Amino acid sequence: MDLHGYFRSSASYRVRIALNLKGLEYQYHPVNLLKGEQRGEAYRALNPQGLVPALINDDGKTLTQSLAILEWLDETHPQVPLLPADPSERARIRALAYNVACDIQPIQNLRVLKYIQTELGASDEQKVEWIRHWINGGFDALEMQLAADFDGPFAAGSAPGLFECCLIPQIYNAQRFGVDIARYPTIEHIADACAAMPAFEDARPENQPDSTL
Amino acid sequence: MDLHGYFRSSASYRVRIALNLKGLEYQYHPVNLLKGEQRGEAYRALNPQGLVPALINDDGKTLTQSLAILEWLDETHPQVPLLPADPSERARIRALAYNVACDIQPIQNLRVLKYIQTELGASDEQKVEWIRHWINGGFDALEMQLAADFDGPFAAGSAPGLFECCLIPQIYNAQRFGVDIARYPTIEHIADACAAMPAFEDARPENQPDSTL
Repeated sequence: MDLHGYFRSSASYRVRIALNLKGLEYQYHPVNLLKGEQRGEAYRALNPQGLVPALINDDGKTLTQSLAILEWLDETHPQVPLLPADPSERARIRALAYNVACDIQPIQNLRVLKYIQTELGASDEQKVEWIRHWINGGFDALEMQLAADFDGPFAAGSAPGLFECCLIPQIYNAQRFGVDIARYPTIEHIADACAAMPAFEDARPENQPDSTL
Repeated sequence: MDLHGYFRSSASYRVRIALNLKGLEYQYHPVNLLKGEQRGEAYRALNPQGLVPALINDDGKTLTQSLAILEWLDETHPQVPLLPADPSERARIRALAYNVACDIQPIQNLRVLKYIQTELGASDEQKVEWIRHWINGGFDALEMQLAADFDGPFAAGSAPGLFECCLIPQIYNAQRFGVDIARYPTIEHIADACAAMPAFEDARPENQPDSTL
């Protein structure tokens, strides 16, 4: 399989974790978002939406949207499942993942940050305040939901999955902008358990070939 | 089942469509977002994230996040499926749905609009421009992806599903803010096909008991 992504993109990072958790080999093709390569003709031919990541599967089909790729991986490569078997539990884990993927991440996406600065005149300080505001609000709610019935070490119990694929890139982003994760003990507990696993370590932005860190 | 929602909330509207498509009975409980009832103690006890919708299932479990509810409905009530059977096709339909649910809707959510006005000093005009910018950009990409291999009348073929549950509320929202849907012929074609179905008609905001329209 071929993964087109960017070392710092949260959505690319999610897919790298999932591929690693399932032990699937893939070829990594960097798309430089700062240079605008995602809007170039070559990449638009793969993904007209001009967003990373895109996964080209073994049938040559292009899959887009990180969460759709994660669900596809789980349906076609069920070993090391990303979701529990019970429907209510699946719904709980998906809801946690969507809390991150729908309610936190999109609002502090690069293109949104650019817009508030260029069109709404936000200062660098207001930009950082914006990022922290949405992450803190989201993590407050997430912590409450997680803490309510947490056995650990992961949200679904003994193994990480869909939620952790979304959480860890969001924490990476949060820390870049000075959000204090220690305010969220359950989130921090899960993050520590993930950090000890090679699947998460190998997927980190600084361990990608296009990293500038 | 009990659905806690708000007539104008896109996420509530998605779940109403899905319940109607599957022919499932439910009791509707309005949560007035303009009065801040979603942040009240009673509602927070149901959903700590303080967002609508929440679905209470027949086992008394609270399910949150509209997309997690839709996936749960499809897994537990497989009649009138919301997703195709083939994994690549499922991935394509989910990606279309996430285009709306992750890349368009969250950015023009009520709480984000409030923030750009109160914290970044956006004018009413800039607010409307913001909404149109993200919808138009998202619909441009969506139209390209849909048009590429469209047989119709719906994204997956002969029946609507997960994608249409997300698209129709987004179109409702787009039209409120003067976005011209005729610019997107495939999207408009799907919208017309949905409009002819009672499942979509009954789910419309103006047909809910808490509508002020």
